[in-house]
Amino acid sequence: MPNPSPGYSITVRVTAPVGAGTTSTLAGAVASVKGAMTALDVVESHPDHMVIDVTCDASDVEHAEQIASAIADVPGVVVGKVSDRTFLLHLGGKLEVVPKVPLKHRDDLSRAYTPGVARVCTAIAENPEDVRRLTIKRNTVAVVSDGSAVLGLGNIGAAASIPVMEGKAALFKQFADVDAWPVCLDTQDTDAIVEIVRALAPVYGGINLEDISAPRCFEIEARLREMLDIPVFHDDQHGTAIVVLAALTNALRVVEKSLDTVKIVVSGVGAAGHAIIRLLVAQGATNIVACGRNGILSPDDTSDSFRSWIANNTNPEARSGSLQDALAGADVFIGVSAPDILTGSDIETMAERSVVFALANPVPEVDPVAAGKHAAVVATGRSDFPNQINNVLAFPGVFRGLLDAHAVEITDDMLIAAARAISDSVSPSELNPTYIVPSVFDAAVAPAVAAAVRGVAGAGRDDDV
Amino acid sequence: MPNPSPGYSITVRVTAPVGAGTTSTLAGAVASVKGAMTALDVVESHPDHMVIDVTCDASDVEHAEQIASAIADVPGVVVGKVSDRTFLLHLGGKLEVVPKVPLKHRDDLSRAYTPGVARVCTAIAENPEDVRRLTIKRNTVAVVSDGSAVLGLGNIGAAASIPVMEGKAALFKQFADVDAWPVCLDTQDTDAIVEIVRALAPVYGGINLEDISAPRCFEIEARLREMLDIPVFHDDQHGTAIVVLAALTNALRVVEKSLDTVKIVVSGVGAAGHAIIRLLVAQGATNIVACGRNGILSPDDTSDSFRSWIANNTNPEARSGSLQDALAGADVFIGVSAPDILTGSDIETMAERSVVFALANPVPEVDPVAAGKHAAVVATGRSDFPNQINNVLAFPGVFRGLLDAHAVEITDDMLIAAARAISDSVSPSELNPTYIVPSVFDAAVAPAVAAAVRGVAGAGRDDDV
Repeated sequence: MPNPSPGYSITVRVTAPVGAGTTSTLAGAVASVKGAMTALDVVESHPDHMVIDVTCDASDVEHAEQIASAIADVPGVVVGKVSDRTFLLHLGGKLEVVPKVPLKHRDDLSRAYTPGVARVCTAIAENPEDVRRLTIKRNTVAVVSDGSAVLGLGNIGAAASIPVMEGKAALFKQFADVDAWPVCLDTQDTDAIVEIVRALAPVYGGINLEDISAPRCFEIEARLREMLDIPVFHDDQHGTAIVVLAALTNALRVVEKSLDTVKIVVSGVGAAGHAIIRLLVAQGATNIVACGRNGILSPDDTSDSFRSWIANNTNPEARSGSLQDALAGADVFIGVSAPDILTGSDIETMAERSVVFALANPVPEVDPVAAGKHAAVVATGRSDFPNQINNVLAFPGVFRGLLDAHAVEITDDMLIAAARAISDSVSPSELNPTYIVPSVFDAAVAPAVAAAVRGVAGAGRDDDV
Repeated sequence: MPNPSPGYSITVRVTAPVGAGTTSTLAGAVASVKGAMTALDVVESHPDHMVIDVTCDASDVEHAEQIASAIADVPGVVVGKVSDRTFLLHLGGKLEVVPKVPLKHRDDLSRAYTPGVARVCTAIAENPEDVRRLTIKRNTVAVVSDGSAVLGLGNIGAAASIPVMEGKAALFKQFADVDAWPVCLDTQDTDAIVEIVRALAPVYGGINLEDISAPRCFEIEARLREMLDIPVFHDDQHGTAIVVLAALTNALRVVEKSLDTVKIVVSGVGAAGHAIIRLLVAQGATNIVACGRNGILSPDDTSDSFRSWIANNTNPEARSGSLQDALAGADVFIGVSAPDILTGSDIETMAERSVVFALANPVPEVDPVAAGKHAAVVATGRSDFPNQINNVLAFPGVFRGLLDAHAVEITDDMLIAAARAISDSVSPSELNPTYIVPSVFDAAVAPAVAAAVRGVAGAGRDDDV
């Protein structure tokens, strides 16, 4: 059972008898089933009974139910409503659209709406580039998903993907003051998605594709990049690749190895794996072995152009065999694939001072504790272990930089600059095997990433009126 | 020349000599070309010169230039930057997307994003109706335009329409706490627009179509209403019709005539005219004559199904002829057509105690001052005359009511209830020929409209977690 997490937090309202031992009895009940009590609030106090809100972190839904049952089993205690704090937080959604301009009296209305707005429209009609100056396009990103590959949940569709896209938009604003909007599309047809995003694009200064399944995501991204004059970024690919490159840069500093000579095994040849391999190759990695579900990717795998690119640019020794075969003697393992496919013993077969990034979420490719007995550096996607590889380190700053530069496209050089800004956010004195990437709450990261991207993209336009 | 308006307001920065007469000289220069000075701010004061910001309302762009020239002609004055306050207001757009949830530390992130969000997604996947409870869908409306009929500007395209749709979204939030988002589509193909809006719909609790040219707007609306389980409203049609019905109800109270017996002439058989006629018929009007560009609509006009509906439901006396012919003896004129097509003499031919709504914008069908010499009640779409017929009286409250009711469609009964709420917002003691509709800034209107719509639509769902 994973550790209790605030992502599974419940508040249980109970009526309990008055008495010195009541609260400790409740705490004991929660602890008896390994719940983590985080708050105990007395809501009402009466001569003969109290109403108490007991808030606890649980491991999962079943565990939350066990906790509520354990509380209900305390003699004299009656359990009322059990509220799920995560659901409470999501009630009514997580975003709102707020005017930046005053609309209190007639003069405001005359400027923000008719008749004044007509002149602004005319200015854009006459000089289309003004749309980046006079509308929300300047600061706004579409977070586009078709719900086909949402988190680890798979193809849950557009409506069920909305909470993730809202969360992403909230992170954009929080970390980089980017206005982002969920575009959750009730279609999974590649042509339709391309046409819809093309048609929507006037309002946006950038497109962030999200949770779209491979290989459709590659084609959608490539076609949109071709037709649009705003940057198109697929976070599952490029966001992940940036943070992996940043983390690997620092991990190799820790183990004192060099990217151009290490043997790297990448497990997973979907959206993330493909982008990671491309960026590592662009940065000088020479010895990558890619593994799919059936082991080492064959050099003659041409099931699609993206697979064949990987086949042509990896596996210089033309090896074949299983993931385990690939791993023996490797310096670096990067997993973006499936839970629990490796054991500590597999990690033991790697080279000395090996680096293991087990990024499958929520359950990594290998138990990080077991991996840590053999590898010098271990990272996961989880927040409850050191070295969390989290895209939130990248995407807010990347788009801040792109928007500020009025960028029309995104290049590999920008991704590499972003990765360098992240890795350099960990100072030499901070760097150690359990601190290869900065905290996601390090407020200095997004501005550093933005500055790096802007530096590559060039300066934006002046905003005189 | 129209009166100076804050919609055409400029700030002229000048360097001027120090002296007792400087400010009055500047004011005189502005007045000499009929500008309206609204502010004079000293920015810097030096022993021999001052830097002053002169802010003035102008009538139009040329007038603004005249004012700046008049100021520049003052001896000793040097004009620096001339800023347009309307453009300044629009700089960077008028909306932002703001998280409603805290994202300050790890626990927040665990609930709003991974891993907690996965449970919310799963809940929606298992029970699709939960999307109205657990996402922004509950409070969010798409403001959809293809830029084909924007204000009086015509077909200016998607990008140039954004400032209007942003303004609309700002009004939604300001007047009814509805989160609205601009969806400005770079396509004018009916099939494409229908498919795009269908695909986008999961995120939205309602669709507000805006500034889409007729007759495409009718088909788009009808097809979307058929396929979507959220209400679809075309503001140019239904918003206008609601406010016209409300205003006409009160105007007829003033002149003591009855809707079921008055003779009504409607000029304009586009989106607005069609919807006004439909709503008036639904409310019991029996004698409507519709006029298009070529005069009275012929009973055998079947150029499209919408025209033929009008032909079949108006003109009971089977009249033919010009707009002027129709007007003679009529009780009510409603114009949603073109500027300056009637004179005061035409209004003089109407029945005693006539009602004139000249709603073409910015220039009405007839000069309201000339009309007022003969008609008992005159209304326009302009803010600088009494009785402004403005859709902002309707759409915010209509959608507030629809969203609160979790409505799946919008019916004529709801439109009529909304109109009644607006007309009843003018109390009998307030009602007079120059006050037939409430002020757009009357904060009581939107809640009254919302309550009326909700009353017809039925109650929404409970929001327990």
